[in-house]
Parts: sequence; C-alpha cells; structure tokens
Amino acid sequence: MSQASSFAVILVTPQLGENIGMVARAMLNCGLTELRLVAPRDGWPSEPARSAASGADIVIDGAQLFETTEDAIRDLDLVLATTARPRDMTKSVFTPESAAGELRARINARQRCGVLFGKESWGLNNDDVALADGIITVPLNPDFTSLNLAQAVLLLAYEWFKTTDDTAPRELKMPSDTRPASKDEMMMLIGHLEDELDAAGFLRVAEKRPTMVRNLRNVLWRAEMTEKEVRMFRGIISALTKFKSSR
Amino acid sequence: MSQASSFAVILVTPQLGENIGMVARAMLNCGLTELRLVAPRDGWPSEPARSAASGADIVIDGAQLFETTEDAIRDLDLVLATTARPRDMTKSVFTPESAAGELRARINARQRCGVLFGKESWGLNNDDVALADGIITVPLNPDFTSLNLAQAVLLLAYEWFKTTDDTAPRELKMPSDTRPASKDEMMMLIGHLEDELDAAGFLRVAEKRPTMVRNLRNVLWRAEMTEKEVRMFRGIISALTKFKSSR
Repeated sequence: MSQASSFAVILVTPQLGENIGMVARAMLNCGLTELRLVAPRDGWPSEPARSAASGADIVIDGAQLFETTEDAIRDLDLVLATTARPRDMTKSVFTPESAAGELRARINARQRCGVLFGKESWGLNNDDVALADGIITVPLNPDFTSLNLAQAVLLLAYEWFKTTDDTAPRELKMPSDTRPASKDEMMMLIGHLEDELDAAGFLRVAEKRPTMVRNLRNVLWRAEMTEKEVRMFRGIISALTKFKSSR
Repeated sequence: MSQASSFAVILVTPQLGENIGMVARAMLNCGLTELRLVAPRDGWPSEPARSAASGADIVIDGAQLFETTEDAIRDLDLVLATTARPRDMTKSVFTPESAAGELRARINARQRCGVLFGKESWGLNNDDVALADGIITVPLNPDFTSLNLAQAVLLLAYEWFKTTDDTAPRELKMPSDTRPASKDEMMMLIGHLEDELDAAGFLRVAEKRPTMVRNLRNVLWRAEMTEKEVRMFRGIISALTKFKSSR
C-alpha cells in the first residue's frame, strides 16, 4: 500500500450521482483524490457523477466501492465523522479547521486517515458515528445549518488545503512589466507636485503649508504606486500645468 | 440607512436562477442576508432561485436588483472583487481568510462593505474589477481551480462566520446525563483493576509491575472517560472476576 499524502473522503450510502460528482470536484479543488463510496444508492459507475465532477475525472475514476462502512475503514488508523446534529455519544468534536490540523499531523506521522460523510437526507447513522475516533461539526448560523454534501466536503477540504498553503494573506499584485515605486521616486513625485503648487499659489499660506504637504504625501504614500503610475502622475502634473500656462 | 452588521454579496450578471438560490443558501448558512443582483440574465424574481435556496427565503425576498455594477456599489465604503484568474492590474489580493478579517474590521468601524462575484462562465470583467478596492482569490489546487459560484460565496462567507465564532477547536462532548470522570474516580478504577490483576497473578513479576501499571493507567487516562463509563468498567471487572472464580 502506498504512503498516503492526504486523507480518504468516504461517502456512506450517498443518494444522487450528481452529488458524488460535486464532491469529487470540491475534493480536487483542494488537492484530494481518494474517494471511497459505501453502497451508493443509484449504483456505480455513474454518468451523472462524472458530468457533475466537471473534469475531476481522476477522482471519479479512482473511486473505490465498499459494501459496508466497516470495510471502508479497515485499513485506516484515524477516522473522523462529520455530523450536523449533536449525537448522544461521548466523542471529541472538532471544527473543520482543527480537524484539518489533526489530519495533517496524523498523515505527517505516516498514519492513514479517512473522513466519513453521511447521505444527503439524513447524514450518518449512529453506528457509523460510533466507528469514528472523533466528530467534525461545522459551526454555522444556528438558525440555518443545512449544508449540502459537496459544501460540507468543500469546507473540510479547504481547511485541509490551507494547512500547507503559503499564500500571503494580503499581497499587492501588479503587472509583470512594472515594480513598486521606490521611496525616492515617490519623493520626486511629491517634490514635483509641491513645486507646481507653490508656483500656482496653492501653498501660499506659510503656516498651513507643512500640514498640507504632509496630507498630500499621506494620500500618495497610501496609494502604493508602481513606478509606471508615478511616471503617469508626473505626466498628469506636467499636462495640467502646461494647459494652465497656455490658457 | 440602517447600520449594517455584515457585508453585501453582489452577484454581477449571474446566469442561472438555481445558482443564485444556492448562493442564498450558502449566505444564510453563515449568517449573511444582504444579496444584490446586477442584471441577472434570466430575470428576477426567479422560481428556480427560490427552490434552490432550500428555505433561505429571507435572502431571496430581500434581494435588491440593480442595472449596473456602479449602481450596486454607490452606497458602499469598501468593495472587494473575487477573481480566479490573475488580472493585469495593480491591486491588493486577499485570501478569503484575510478578506474576512478586513471586512470585519471595516464593518466594526461602521463602514458599509460589499463583495463582487462574477457570472458562472467567466467571472467579473476587468471594468468591474477596477471598481474594487481589492481582490479576493481563493488559494486552490493550481491544476484544478474551477469553483462554482455558490462554493466561492460559501468559502468567503464561512471565513466571515469564523471571525466571530467562538466554537472550541476541539471539545469532548458527552450526553447530558453524565460528566467527565474525576481523577479520584479514575484512580479508584485503576486501583480496582490492579487489585484484581494482583489476585489473578497477572502482575506477579515485581520488577515489571510499575511499568505495566503505568501503561495501564496511560491507556485508561487517554480514554477521557465519563463517570458513567467508569462505573461500566468497574462492573465489567466485577463481572469478569466473578465469572472466573465460579468457573
């Protein structure tokens, strides 16, 4: 058995093939490919599933079929079960985020893991939940918690993806033909603008001048300009002053 | 205008009513209710939208209709745009998590906020993106990034919900008629088991005894028993020893 680098998504008695396909798509969006199906109601393989997967064929083609939940988890070391309703059992309940962290830690320790998802209409039965080492419940608006199957899978898969994703929380992206303006370029721009404003008499009240210049600098600093944008603004200043002097 | 406690979800030229309904459902799952529609292709109101909303009628009934994106954002202070493809623009790009934090901070500061989502087939056009203060891009498997509209809304809405949700990352839940066993109860259980194992000769090798008792304690400690479960185990020990002595 190959070393798994992610966990298995196990759908227990899913009903509509279309929902299985949407699950496959959400899985692949987040880099998950191992799908296990326990007694899907409408049979397998399923054309509606393939169609709804929107190209996530690798997940559909690799799906494994099992007759019982027990069979589907025999080779695993950690099993978590997703439930929306509270169960009358003593079990650890994880958020998707903490479950993703637990799964990542176990898989890093070379354990094999799986997560059970119940059927659309009812979720998992209590015997399936009892087979799990812990429960995942998605915190949601308590007045409206009905989440469809693919969305439940997506939220867990997304939290899983986030455990290793290193995308910057916020990043200033720009076209490849430019770069952030240097502080020197910004100071040259502000100097240019100050000179023209002095010439136009806009900064003539001496005691107000320092505050106005500071405010101006703050606005332009905040704009996080590129080098190209600085040149555009210097062109604008030149154009406006040329127009004015020829009027 | 009333003070908003959340942000508006703005769908720009959405195509299928069904997708609008699934967006409404994902919104209400996460406590969002303000939906704005810019020129929905199939008209509004929409029966497929209501049906797919699965009971999120409050969102459907309150949806506001606009002819242009400009009109839909006029009253807002902060606008973010979701895009999957990189655009040739200089803009801040947020993850859903950092965008949710930014939205929360702005709304706490009494600013009105909205997030633009484009149509299913193409996303937002560049003129719409240019109207936004920043971009949200969901980090996903780079080989398979196609996310459906409702799922894109769900991921952002879920991150939004998480910014104030205080669910414990992991919590041991148990039936209401019991409580965690106290350390005293656990030590009584272990003492009971040790006595019976001594009587049965299982701990007779004196130099191994401390290690075995420690291992036993570790297993039982790790099980995080309830008071009821401790009583069940003591009953089991009694039953097994009674059976043995009468054999």
